[in-house]
Amino acid sequence: MYKLLEAFAWETVVRPDPVRERRLAELSALVAAAQEDDGYLNTFFGPRGPDQRYTDLAHGHELYCAGHLFQAAVARLRAGVEDDLTRTAIRLADRIYEDFGPDGLAGSDGHHEVEVGLMELYRATGHVRYRDLAGHFIEQRGHQTSEHHAIGHEYYLDDVPVREATVLRGHVVRAMYLTAGAVDLAVETGDGELLRALINQWENTWARRTYVTGGMGSRHLGESFGRDFELPPDRAYTETCGAVGAIMVAWRLLLATGESHYADAIERLLYNMIATSPNAEGDRFFYVNPLLAREPGIATAEGVAPFREDTLRATWFWVACCPTNVVRLLSSLSGYFATVRGDALTLQQYFTGEISTRLQDGRKVRLDVTTDYPWGGTVTVRVGQSPGRWTLRLRVPLWADGATLEHDGEVQAVEAGYASVTRQWDAGDVVVLHLPMAARLIQPDSHIDALRGTAAVQRGPLVYCAESVVSSDGAVDLETFRLDPGTRLESVPAAGPNDTAEVVRVRGVVTRPEPDRAWPYVEPSTAGAPAPAADVDLQPTTAEIDLVPYYAWSNRGPSTMRVWIPLSEGAPGQSPRTRP
Amino acid sequence: MYKLLEAFAWETVVRPDPVRERRLAELSALVAAAQEDDGYLNTFFGPRGPDQRYTDLAHGHELYCAGHLFQAAVARLRAGVEDDLTRTAIRLADRIYEDFGPDGLAGSDGHHEVEVGLMELYRATGHVRYRDLAGHFIEQRGHQTSEHHAIGHEYYLDDVPVREATVLRGHVVRAMYLTAGAVDLAVETGDGELLRALINQWENTWARRTYVTGGMGSRHLGESFGRDFELPPDRAYTETCGAVGAIMVAWRLLLATGESHYADAIERLLYNMIATSPNAEGDRFFYVNPLLAREPGIATAEGVAPFREDTLRATWFWVACCPTNVVRLLSSLSGYFATVRGDALTLQQYFTGEISTRLQDGRKVRLDVTTDYPWGGTVTVRVGQSPGRWTLRLRVPLWADGATLEHDGEVQAVEAGYASVTRQWDAGDVVVLHLPMAARLIQPDSHIDALRGTAAVQRGPLVYCAESVVSSDGAVDLETFRLDPGTRLESVPAAGPNDTAEVVRVRGVVTRPEPDRAWPYVEPSTAGAPAPAADVDLQPTTAEIDLVPYYAWSNRGPSTMRVWIPLSEGAPGQSPRTRP
Repeated sequence: MYKLLEAFAWETVVRPDPVRERRLAELSALVAAAQEDDGYLNTFFGPRGPDQRYTDLAHGHELYCAGHLFQAAVARLRAGVEDDLTRTAIRLADRIYEDFGPDGLAGSDGHHEVEVGLMELYRATGHVRYRDLAGHFIEQRGHQTSEHHAIGHEYYLDDVPVREATVLRGHVVRAMYLTAGAVDLAVETGDGELLRALINQWENTWARRTYVTGGMGSRHLGESFGRDFELPPDRAYTETCGAVGAIMVAWRLLLATGESHYADAIERLLYNMIATSPNAEGDRFFYVNPLLAREPGIATAEGVAPFREDTLRATWFWVACCPTNVVRLLSSLSGYFATVRGDALTLQQYFTGEISTRLQDGRKVRLDVTTDYPWGGTVTVRVGQSPGRWTLRLRVPLWADGATLEHDGEVQAVEAGYASVTRQWDAGDVVVLHLPMAARLIQPDSHIDALRGTAAVQRGPLVYCAESVVSSDGAVDLETFRLDPGTRLESVPAAGPNDTAEVVRVRGVVTRPEPDRAWPYVEPSTAGAPAPAADVDLQPTTAEIDLVPYYAWSNRGPSTMRVWIPLSEGAPGQSPRTRP
Repeated sequence: MYKLLEAFAWETVVRPDPVRERRLAELSALVAAAQEDDGYLNTFFGPRGPDQRYTDLAHGHELYCAGHLFQAAVARLRAGVEDDLTRTAIRLADRIYEDFGPDGLAGSDGHHEVEVGLMELYRATGHVRYRDLAGHFIEQRGHQTSEHHAIGHEYYLDDVPVREATVLRGHVVRAMYLTAGAVDLAVETGDGELLRALINQWENTWARRTYVTGGMGSRHLGESFGRDFELPPDRAYTETCGAVGAIMVAWRLLLATGESHYADAIERLLYNMIATSPNAEGDRFFYVNPLLAREPGIATAEGVAPFREDTLRATWFWVACCPTNVVRLLSSLSGYFATVRGDALTLQQYFTGEISTRLQDGRKVRLDVTTDYPWGGTVTVRVGQSPGRWTLRLRVPLWADGATLEHDGEVQAVEAGYASVTRQWDAGDVVVLHLPMAARLIQPDSHIDALRGTAAVQRGPLVYCAESVVSSDGAVDLETFRLDPGTRLESVPAAGPNDTAEVVRVRGVVTRPEPDRAWPYVEPSTAGAPAPAADVDLQPTTAEIDLVPYYAWSNRGPSTMRVWIPLSEGAPGQSPRTRP
């Protein structure tokens, strides 16, 4: 409910709509009516009486829910509105401060979220006590006081204090929400030590515990991170909410450091995780996002939970946190496109639309952006009424080797990071960024055991996959397809009903189906093995298959799917990376 | 407790000991004293009053415990003893028949075991009602009436009826215990359809859902099987109790079919799973048996459960089912060594010891077996007083390509299966089986994504592993070692304090440590990558490492470990198997 209210609050700014505004007011009044006289609000614990409050902090999601209410209220406050929702949130925050603040109760919520909610509420209201309470919750984690969990204290991030940890671990969504709050805390208190610790955790997590889609979470048990380089494609849990949380963290680190690779991370997560969760029609969602499906997915039904890896997208289920998380992100998405610092305006993401904002000195600037990114790589920026000299910066993604920037009749090569133009702008001035959109073959780091001998294809920011739709005729059985590592990667327009503009055609070989009813671990060649009969053609046949963007998979019925495709015989198993 | 009593009961036959006999009598009296007047016995539910019985069948292990009591009683009955233990078990079995038999309660235990216990009790007592009740419990499974579980009805094997299923699935120990009882039911009722279904399930499971160690269970969540060919070495759950259960099933199928590959399976499970669970001193145990440890194991402590994959062997913990399961198996192990059918005696497993038994016509036969198997491959069988003509059969394992049998001064090649000699025997006649014990390089089936581009080493029945003990000096970092697929496999005597007689020396290359702080999915070669400095030696160095038997790993302190070792660059990723 609170995440939906947050989405409504953001939408109200970007796309005002009286019907939605009324619905928001009604729901806010309903929430306000549920609040108790002393400010406490939780519809599960509240009606059971005051002595039942905070009796199941580990699993009850009591403060977690409060945190989401705070974020919803902040969306309202950011729009300059004070209403039932914001007043209710502030009263609840004050209640929680009374209960858990100085000389208050010990403990904190088993599912982090109240921390980041309090930090955002502090920013929006200026009430220092919210920041202090967030800091109290954040710093008390890591002393192994949490309740038993099958995967131990790290489930709750309670194994190591936040400023001593070196990598993210445990439950992915908890880890991301805690980290988002901690980055806010570090920035708002000028705590460089804490910020450096958090950056280190993110860097190690991004390098060793993240899938090519940006997804995180290698284990179903505990919905958790695996160890370093434990990244099985079939058992990837990579919960959609984890991706929303990772964007929250990457966005904060982008603002804290100004380093473009955080915006690269957001792009990767948006195009390959957030876009994957909903189906093409937008009425079903993935909770779990595997990178390999050896068997076609099955429809969710009684006894088949959508957090299994082998289901189709579900309409709903009893832990339906993801849909509203995606909704609140999409409703606030325009906030992630551009940043301002001093007299520089930076485009962090590419889209067709209009930017109207102010530089730090108050000067209004206006840009029109035109692009068919991510299908095309040309981004045209036309400057509107923008008085004086200032800097326009455009992010060049790390993958965009060979990018160029065109302005004032010149074309210059630009490197990964930010390309910038500082000048006196006239209305109508045009800058064009060209990003190379040829599909690229990607190989995994040799530390990743689960991906040895495979490659994937990326085109622009999009990760592609091979999908074998069960109902289609003559589809290649993905279990027998081996990618030729020297394949040409040909981008071709997608045919048929598909929301995808471009597919990538690759070449490979189809191997013979192998026996699968015998002991599967044998000596490579047995001297006494019978020779094949002369009339049986044992030569592998070549084949071409069309890869589709990963986000689009499972939209055409049950299918098998592979992001990482085994390479054909004799291809190098896995190349060590070139040292930079 | 019941599994310990079962172990005591078996030991009493093989190695009589008055102290153990007294302890068995005391514990049996204690169990009898806990039985209620109407025969009910369960120390958790019983004291809560009669209306609490059978109120948590899904999770309460109420009938499961009864099944273990029945198996303990059967061990006594097989020794010709009737005592407190056997009388208590029979009274409880009658109680359960009253409660769940005709016109009785619906439902059955969420953890199978009572089925096989009842079938064994039927065999030992001849009471047909136990067989019928076992059949009732077995046949009612598969109709999706079980309680919710995160992995669905298959957790309880309640997704598909036992005679319709094609593969084992769900919780591994539940699957094995249910299957053992179902094989007993099929054999005792002459139900060929059921037996064929169970054989088909085992064959598919052995070919597609079993690790090279014989271990089963690819997932921590639900302690369960994965899908076909989902066999990650790092996340192998392969619970020790699952191996005990798999031996129970394989033994029953061996007796039902006479096919040697079931005895091969028992051998694989004994040497690579059962032997692995206890440490060298026998006072700690593995519950989970991974095939890959990238990081050294940690001692179990508060908050670190031994069913995590990254722990050392534990002394005990709150789900300590495995130690007594291993104990009852080891106590009854001599029962698995030989079988008799008609006038043929078959040696199914090899050991040094004496066999004294009867052929089916009642003739006594006696054999002395001498071998240092599994270190040596020579098995010498000396026939004792054994009147008349009969057949001696010796199992030739599937891996033993090139085995020979020597008798009457002749040496003949023998194929996998059973080598047999039928003749008039004189006391002192000798037959010698020679099994080739050269270490062999094993490659995984190309269906197994998680093992692409790796190989393992097996020597005789033993699977080997590379272990990098943290405390040893100059050990090769396993993360950088790549096996040369053309390596010689040299068996050398183990040095130092180790319970292992032979290690296997292999050759490979040590690759440069790679950067591990960057995005791990990149294009194989970047045109603009800087050339290495001229004075840096980038040639990989060759190295030899000594592999130890898998069962012996983690006995010398925290270590990293790999059963499947990545092959060096340019080696074939994974060979398709030769079609038989």
